[in-house]
Parts: sequence; C-alpha cells; structure tokens
Amino acid sequence: MVAEGVDKVLEKVEANGEAALERLFSLLRIASISTDAAYVDDCREAASWCANVLSEIGFEASVKPTSGQPMVVGHYRSSEPNARHVLFYGHYDVQPADPLELWRTPPFEPRLAEEPGNGTVILGRGASDDKGQLMTFVEACRAWREAAGDLPVSVTVLLEGEEESGSPSLGPFLDAHAEELKAELALVCDTGQARSDQPAITTMLRGLLDVEIVVKGPSRDLHSGMYGGPAVNPIRALAGVLAKLHDGDGRVQIPGFYDDVAEVPELQRAQWAHLGRDEADLLAKVGLSTPAGETGRSFLEQIWSRPTAEVNGIVGGYTGPGTKTVIPSEASAKLTFRLVPNQDPEKIRKDFQALVQTSLPADCTVTFKSRGGSPAVGFDIDAEYMRAAAAALETEWGKPAVMMGCGGSIPIVQSFKSVLGMDSLLVGFALDDDRIHSPNEKYNLESFRKGTRSWARILAKLAS
Amino acid sequence: MVAEGVDKVLEKVEANGEAALERLFSLLRIASISTDAAYVDDCREAASWCANVLSEIGFEASVKPTSGQPMVVGHYRSSEPNARHVLFYGHYDVQPADPLELWRTPPFEPRLAEEPGNGTVILGRGASDDKGQLMTFVEACRAWREAAGDLPVSVTVLLEGEEESGSPSLGPFLDAHAEELKAELALVCDTGQARSDQPAITTMLRGLLDVEIVVKGPSRDLHSGMYGGPAVNPIRALAGVLAKLHDGDGRVQIPGFYDDVAEVPELQRAQWAHLGRDEADLLAKVGLSTPAGETGRSFLEQIWSRPTAEVNGIVGGYTGPGTKTVIPSEASAKLTFRLVPNQDPEKIRKDFQALVQTSLPADCTVTFKSRGGSPAVGFDIDAEYMRAAAAALETEWGKPAVMMGCGGSIPIVQSFKSVLGMDSLLVGFALDDDRIHSPNEKYNLESFRKGTRSWARILAKLAS
Repeated sequence: MVAEGVDKVLEKVEANGEAALERLFSLLRIASISTDAAYVDDCREAASWCANVLSEIGFEASVKPTSGQPMVVGHYRSSEPNARHVLFYGHYDVQPADPLELWRTPPFEPRLAEEPGNGTVILGRGASDDKGQLMTFVEACRAWREAAGDLPVSVTVLLEGEEESGSPSLGPFLDAHAEELKAELALVCDTGQARSDQPAITTMLRGLLDVEIVVKGPSRDLHSGMYGGPAVNPIRALAGVLAKLHDGDGRVQIPGFYDDVAEVPELQRAQWAHLGRDEADLLAKVGLSTPAGETGRSFLEQIWSRPTAEVNGIVGGYTGPGTKTVIPSEASAKLTFRLVPNQDPEKIRKDFQALVQTSLPADCTVTFKSRGGSPAVGFDIDAEYMRAAAAALETEWGKPAVMMGCGGSIPIVQSFKSVLGMDSLLVGFALDDDRIHSPNEKYNLESFRKGTRSWARILAKLAS
Repeated sequence: MVAEGVDKVLEKVEANGEAALERLFSLLRIASISTDAAYVDDCREAASWCANVLSEIGFEASVKPTSGQPMVVGHYRSSEPNARHVLFYGHYDVQPADPLELWRTPPFEPRLAEEPGNGTVILGRGASDDKGQLMTFVEACRAWREAAGDLPVSVTVLLEGEEESGSPSLGPFLDAHAEELKAELALVCDTGQARSDQPAITTMLRGLLDVEIVVKGPSRDLHSGMYGGPAVNPIRALAGVLAKLHDGDGRVQIPGFYDDVAEVPELQRAQWAHLGRDEADLLAKVGLSTPAGETGRSFLEQIWSRPTAEVNGIVGGYTGPGTKTVIPSEASAKLTFRLVPNQDPEKIRKDFQALVQTSLPADCTVTFKSRGGSPAVGFDIDAEYMRAAAAALETEWGKPAVMMGCGGSIPIVQSFKSVLGMDSLLVGFALDDDRIHSPNEKYNLESFRKGTRSWARILAKLAS
C-alpha cells in the first residue's frame, strides 16, 4: 500500500490546503498561554480542540488532567501488519503575547500576510511555535487517513500544554503513563531548518548545567575608606575567578573539560560550512562584528557541537544610583555550561567547583547552588530511521537534509531517552526569522504546506 | 593672661562638668536627622539651640537659612591684641536612628550607662557624631569666658546641618560668605583617636574618585544556547578588566598610579606601628583572618596613606531566582579610588579609562560615568599651629599626639582649603567603638571631659 499510496496522500495534502489552514487558524485563535493563570480556560479549550481533531481523523484521543495544564493523548493503531509504532510530540501552549503594542495585528486573530523573502506568512502567536508545527503532523495523518484510509505506522500523539512554562507536569506524567506512551521512536516537531529551501534533522542537542556561585568575604558590608585594601573584596575575587574560566583562545579552563568531547565528522562540518550561513550577518544582527568564542571554530560549529561556559548574571555590592563606598560581604554569579554528548554534567560541576575553590584568595568562601544538569543527547546519523527520514525529506525538498545540532536543549527529548528509552527524530520547519517568543510571530505558509508533505513522506518511509 | 589662665580654665571645665553634660543632653534630645524631611523642624530647633548657646557665652550668633538645613554662624572677637583668628567647624545634624529595635534605649533620650572598658558612656544618636564632639569645643570656650572673661583667640563658629546628607548647601554657603568665614586656620572636631588613652591629630585625608563603567556587547540580550561562544559576553569582558586591575601583590596596575605617591616618613610609620592596633583583631571583627591589599604594608599604613582601587558594586544579566540562559547586552561596575596627597584625580581617571579601553575584547564598548574626584589633603606636620596643638594635647594626655591619616574623606576640609585657602587642624576624641551611624551610639564621658580640656589647652597654645 505504502509505496504507491504516498502520491495520493500528497494530492490530498494539496486538496486539503485551505481547510487545513482554517483548522490551524481555529487553534491559533485560542489564547493558550500556559504561564499566565488568567488563561487556564484557554489552555483547556486548546487541549479539547486538539483531542477533537485527533478523534476526527480516527485517533482514540482524550484530554488527561495533570496538576498543571492537561495533556492530550491520542492513539492510532495501523492495520498494516507489524506496523512500526511512533510517538509524536508537540505542544499546544504558547508564549505570552506581550508587548502587545508591537504586534501589527492582534496576536490571537491569525491572518495571512505577504512578506518580502518569505512569501505568504501566517501571522499569530503560536503560528510557528508550536501550533503550526504540530499541525503539519496532524494534517499529514489526516491526508493519509483520507487518501489511504489508514496510517502506515501506528501513532501515539502526546501534546503538552506546559512547554513554555518549564514542563513541570511532564516528568510525572511520563512516569505514570510510561506503558501507554512508549513507542519505538519519538517524532518531535519543535525544531527548525537552517535554510528555508533545505530540510533539516536535528541530531544533537546540547545539555545544560547551571551553577550559581556565591563568594563571601567579610562578615558584613564594610566602608571602603576604613577597610579597603586590608579586607578582601568578594567582587574582585569573583571577577578573578570568572576571568580565569577561559584562556585567550576562548577555551574553557576547567581541567578535563574537553576530554570527552568528540570532534564532529568532517563531512558534517563541511555540510554546515555550505549552509550559506553568513557569520558576519548573524553577528551584525545583534550589533557585533568579531566572532568570539573558541578560536578557529565556526559560528555553527560552536553553537551546535562545542561545549561552552557562560556567565548569565552577576551581582554584588551597591548597584543603585550614584556611589556607595562599600566593600560588600558577598558577590554572586550565575553560570550555565552547554554540554555536548559524552560530557558528564556531574563531573563538570565538580571540576568547576574545584577550580573556583582553588582560585579564590584567602578569606573568601564560596557556596554553590545547582539545579543539576541534563546531559547532551546525540543520535546516530546512520540509524535506519534517520536514513529513512533523510531520504523522505530529500525527495520532498530536492536537497539533502542537513544533520544539524541545536544550541539549546529540548528537555522532552532527554526525557524520552531517560524515561522511555526512546530515540527521537527531530524534524521541524521553523525558520530563524519566525519571531517565536516575540511580537508578530509567523510561520511561512510554505513551511506549513511542505512540512505537512514532509511528514506524509516520512510516515511512508518509516513504514517501508 | 594666657599662660597662667589655662589652669583656671581647666578648673572651670571640671566645675562645669554636670551642667555641660546637661547641655549636651538637651541637644541630643533634638532629633535633628537631616536626611529625612519629617525632621526638618527638629533641625531648625537644633540650629536655634546652638545659636542660643553661642550667644550665652558671648558670641554674636545667628541661624542662617540655606536652601536646605540652616547654618549656625557665631563670631567672637578676642580682646587680646593681634589675636589669632580661627574658624571652628562642626555639625548639629545626625544620622537616622533606624533600625530602632536594636537600640537598648530610645535614640533621642540620652542617658549615661556603664560599659566595660569604656567606663561611663553617653548613649544616644549624635552623642559622638557630632554633637558630643562639637560641644567639647563650645564648652571649652564657655570655660574660657567664665574663667578668664575672654577667649585667647578670635573665633568664628560654623555649624552645619547637612553633613550626614552630603552637604549640598555648604559649597554655595562658603562661596557666598567667604569674607565672613575666612580665618587663619580651621579647627575641625569630627575625627577620632586611635587609642582611648592617646590624643591624635589627623593630618592626612585621602581623596576619592568614583568611576562607573558600563560594558556593552551585543545590541540586545541573547539566548546563550543560540549565541553563547560566538557572541562576546560583557560580563566576562568586565570580569577580565576588573581582574587586571591589581597584580598578585595587590598593587593597582593603572600605569603611573603610584608615580606621585610619597612614602610616609619613617618616624610616623613607627608611631603607627606602636599604636597597639591589633591587625588580626581588626580583621577578625569582620570575619577575616588574612590581610589583603598591598603586600608588606600594614593595615594602618594602607588605610591612612596608600591609594586603593575598589569595586563597590557590579551587576549584569539575570540576577533573579533560578536560571536564565542569557548573554546580556551589558554589564556594569562601580569603582572608587582612594587617593593620597599629590595624586591628581583627573589623571587617574583618564589612566584608568585608558586601561579599561585597551583591556576589552573586540566588539565591547564602554562608557564611563564619574562625579569627579576630590584630591587628598595632607597638612604639614611641622607647621607652627600643628606643633602648638600637639604640645597642648601632649600636656593634657601625657602622651604625644599621634599624627594620623584618615581612610575616608572629609569634604569640608577640602572645601576650606580650596574655597577659603585655609589649612585645618583636625582634632577629635571619637573612638572606633563609638558605634557612630549605628544603633547605641555612644561617647565616652571621659572623651567629653578630656576633649573639652584639650580644646581649652589648644586655644591657649594657639594664642601664645
């Protein structure tokens, strides 16, 4: 069925185009802002809407309560013998829309607009992140059902309503429903492409480790005229520690930091180099002109495949208007480390803390706070499912899928691995200029269309 | 008259003891907190009280309005032929009393108490700073008038009501009344002794220069997962600059910083070494055990005679609870430099700014804010008036006066020099444990008594 079926499915995707857009608009009209208690009813409404749409196309779907926003879970059992079983993940909640005054049209009144370079775009909060993206998958399933009467693989859908508010219910929910949710592979549509004309699979997600350090010196704030000099200054001590964290080539100076870091294969690096990403332009967009970080590593290489140490915040002493001649009793800094596969967050944390301890002057003590780390995740780019998805995408787009890294972390993918033992296939169609989390969020109409077609093809390839 | 007169004056000081204390108590009962608008009437009352007391002892005294708290000015013309003319300065305003709950007795209900090591103490806000101190001089004048019918020198008294709130009216007032206030020498009673049993003259006041630096990198806050590495981090850049400010021996690394710094004469340094100041104890009081600052320089030497650079505050990026993975667009620090005689604040400011400019990585820009600096003041310890005062103090206390430095600055002394061209003689009887600016401020009854006697003797010596 599958081989000859996909063309009809793609025809159905095209035929459904307008109706699919209207369905997406219906979902975008629901202000499902998960971080704001004022929108709790909207979140419920969005969950119900999703469950209804899944039911419409043959899923056994329900809204499942949690202590926060509800989950939507739907099951579809393919009639294909020995059908592969996948779990699709997306989220129906969105970021707050403020500052409202910067929106060209109201954030929850989606509409089409023309944009130079992007063609027709869908404007509205959630258009890209993640309602537009999750609907590419749902519409692909719909087209399969309508064109072929079945899906080529069994599908469980899990739609979360707390992705934008830290997913507090997700871990307990996965634990409690592990049997129901476990599948052979997770499909996640919450990532993007490096170029609008070339598909991408995200195969590597950096991990994250946070450590806050509080350096204490004198037992109380001191007058700098009376104690400045003889009394150790915690701000100066902290600055000294932070200044030691990198060498002149931007390499992190924690002993052993790079021991477990693998180099990206040359082929992949070459692919990245030919993405047409203009480093100068990426920097110019944020007011910079000189690449910082590790000497000799490209922008993408650094962001996708190299570990980093960054100071995200620092505070100590007097920070109000004017001058206060104080030697403060303490100063603190918040750091995060981006980790790559094989780095052990716990080892990095210990090694960093040891470095800080040995770098402080006498009479300074330090305390550390950490929420713990999440290791990086890397998937085998030669795995069967990865090659299948890459082939499907190349057929649709006429260009090979870029095997990308992702600078940030996607906790759900880490949870799927650690709780359910599943690898994830991360395919998404968002673009860097989608303005997610910002006013005037958009999703290219072409992203929505070709995203739907891409999933239709991937489902076919995963079945064959 | 003078030589034989001083003994009678001292007898009068002793005879006046109880009445003098009652007068001080009257002044201490007035809550003349200059920083709080709720106490503006109290400040007026305190000014009137001072003017009345000066009138009582023969001064032509008046309360002079300013745009802030009023000044008290009094004039006494000695009948001695060719009498020297001095200007006495003190301030009638006090610090706020909060936190009130830490006071053992209400701050504006002065009373005597016994304290181990200090004997009888006068408890109350302003007991030491500066009501008790200024009254030592006023009571000395009273004793002279009552015992000898005259003062041995002509005296102008200037009592300020805004010393604790930055003296905003003082500069304009000095300018406007320069002719009226100008004298041969200023006497200032707002300093202290290094030991309770040995008098002191403060001959060197450090200057102050403040500079705030704001380091800017990216044009907006960036996601550390998307830009960490390639984008310069202003916090890291700022930490790097601050870490470069001192070498391993605690010496400030601004080029030329020490060029104009004179070494303290060996005799004076020896005197400081024998003050019995326990450095370990001074540090232990604030939770420290290891002297920081310039290697090989004693605590007192550093505080009284060496220039310093201190970071008083730093802030950048995310400082709230938890973690935010941000590369901030800017970070800032507030620094103050303590300067010693001959250092030019403007030169130091420029040299510091140049050091910062050259220490920043590419793509970081920096802006500087400075309220400007005040140079240090040093007085000639061999000047005639200095030797006269030292002799008077040695006679009273049986020990030579310590020629001290002062870690902080006393702006009035700088103004007397720059506006009125006068040197100042800084003699005070406050002790380190007087708890000025803190709850349970006290002034030893013996400080009040011997302070009054000391001024009686100094007036005699200045006349002869």
